Amino acid sequence: MGITLPAGGGSWGLALAFVLNNNNVPVKVWARDEKQVDLFNREHTSKYFDSFVFPSSIKMTSSIDEALSNSDTLVLSVPVRATVGLVESIKDKIHDKNVVLTAKGLDNGEILSERLKPYISSLKLSVLSGPSFASEVIQKKTTCVVIASENSDLSKELQNDFSSDFFRVYTSDDVVGVELCGALKNVYAIGSGFLDGKKVGYNTKASYLTRSLHELGNIVLNRGGKETTLLGLSGIGDLILTCTSPTSRNYSFGYNFNGDTTTAHTVEGLYTLPNILEMADKYKIDMPIVKAINSIIFNNEPVEECMHLSQKRRHPEHRR
Amino acid sequence: MGITLPAGGGSWGLALAFVLNNNNVPVKVWARDEKQVDLFNREHTSKYFDSFVFPSSIKMTSSIDEALSNSDTLVLSVPVRATVGLVESIKDKIHDKNVVLTAKGLDNGEILSERLKPYISSLKLSVLSGPSFASEVIQKKTTCVVIASENSDLSKELQNDFSSDFFRVYTSDDVVGVELCGALKNVYAIGSGFLDGKKVGYNTKASYLTRSLHELGNIVLNRGGKETTLLGLSGIGDLILTCTSPTSRNYSFGYNFNGDTTTAHTVEGLYTLPNILEMADKYKIDMPIVKAINSIIFNNEPVEECMHLSQKRRHPEHRR
Repeated sequence: MGITLPAGGGSWGLALAFVLNNNNVPVKVWARDEKQVDLFNREHTSKYFDSFVFPSSIKMTSSIDEALSNSDTLVLSVPVRATVGLVESIKDKIHDKNVVLTAKGLDNGEILSERLKPYISSLKLSVLSGPSFASEVIQKKTTCVVIASENSDLSKELQNDFSSDFFRVYTSDDVVGVELCGALKNVYAIGSGFLDGKKVGYNTKASYLTRSLHELGNIVLNRGGKETTLLGLSGIGDLILTCTSPTSRNYSFGYNFNGDTTTAHTVEGLYTLPNILEMADKYKIDMPIVKAINSIIFNNEPVEECMHLSQKRRHPEHRR
Repeated sequence: MGITLPAGGGSWGLALAFVLNNNNVPVKVWARDEKQVDLFNREHTSKYFDSFVFPSSIKMTSSIDEALSNSDTLVLSVPVRATVGLVESIKDKIHDKNVVLTAKGLDNGEILSERLKPYISSLKLSVLSGPSFASEVIQKKTTCVVIASENSDLSKELQNDFSSDFFRVYTSDDVVGVELCGALKNVYAIGSGFLDGKKVGYNTKASYLTRSLHELGNIVLNRGGKETTLLGLSGIGDLILTCTSPTSRNYSFGYNFNGDTTTAHTVEGLYTLPNILEMADKYKIDMPIVKAINSIIFNNEPVEECMHLSQKRRHPEHRR
């Protein structure tokens, strides 16, 4: 049996298809756009990876039925905002499939696995996350990720499918923690971009990241996630990656922020922001950094205000 | 009463003198080199800070007796290797003084506070640490640090002396944890420089930092330090700062490493390395990253070997 990857929005689906194909796992990539499909099957290239040629054994199709035939697993690498809609639209075709979520974000104030419960059993669901730029994965640069599932047989099976010398997969049972870390790091990356855009320096930035980790820990533990996740690849690892690299779209958005959000379709953190605030409000979780970032973006408050809040907040050391 | 800062080796003593002087705390800087003293008192400049002019109210003296007169506190900002010798040489003059350690490292296989026990009571000792480049402190860029002491009255008093709008001080009682985090981050920064020098990419680097934090946690908890310290400014905060910035001498040493260690006098991590291994051996603490870095530097093993080890090690997620 093989694996199907709808590569609707981004580069990550193609990178994961590359990883699986490299392991001789049969993959089929599904895309709605006929032109994209034709181009890929003819030239094996994608607009997401400048001049990179994929192995010709990776096939793309615009037919969901063809994509799902002979496939036991669906890797959902579409943007957060499109994930629930996509699953709803194909729910009758995937009830017997395993589903791997790779989108990082919340929808309707909830984590994706919760939102998808009506359609996918938690025993068939897993989440793949960790510090991983797609552009480095296709270069076979050593990359470590986590696959989390409540079903340990499933996470081990997927670990086996995905693992290779350059793509190392660790397993976890903390779906909630992995999802929240993945969602929040995009928001903190926007804030990190704000600070670097203002040239605040390394000292301030390091304090900001320390505080962000602390705030992230609050929501992870509150929602039942684990501290080991916070300290692991999908927690601190991905937070560092996303907040310190210009490759991150969320970081770049913050770095270049000029008050305009209308063209930022691929900035997942922007979509996540109101959803996190909804969750924080619902469960009474104190999230001053997320609130500050929201105020800068949507209420036109100055970035310096965010830094000011940074200064006034207490650090973890104070908790004793 | 005032504060005395022997600015023997580096820039940090002068930066802290700047911070205290800015708060109107009387400071005197002690240096052995008469020429350096004369130049500073005449021009208020230092070779460590290109073109920066210090306030003329900061005085330097080459007389330890003059430096210590009317002073209740000594801030020891000399390199690790010089700290114990310096304290031994002035022990009769400082028995009634508070001592603030800012050096980051081990000596003779032990943390500095342990090494200095014969000379300084733990009730008079504190440690100042956190993500803080001196060059940014004198620019008044927002900087957050921790002062740790077993004597909470002392740490609060020092917090009061040092704190300002741009220099924010948090208190802790975890001397061991703060010292170990400060010492180890210099070693991990060398390894981080190795990886960036080899252009391994962001994915690999983020995994390396996650693993480093995990290994750091092992030694901190083994030696009686606290997890909150690991997750705080002097832990993850300083680790991120030191491992991601070319301003760090340890990082730069790793980045440009060519097999030569003879000219690396200011690379504290090099001095710390054998001391950490001694401690790890004594207390049976597994430290594969530190060992790999040691092998690269002193046994001429290839950096790729270190990365290979990186791949083979297990991540925290596996511990469950």
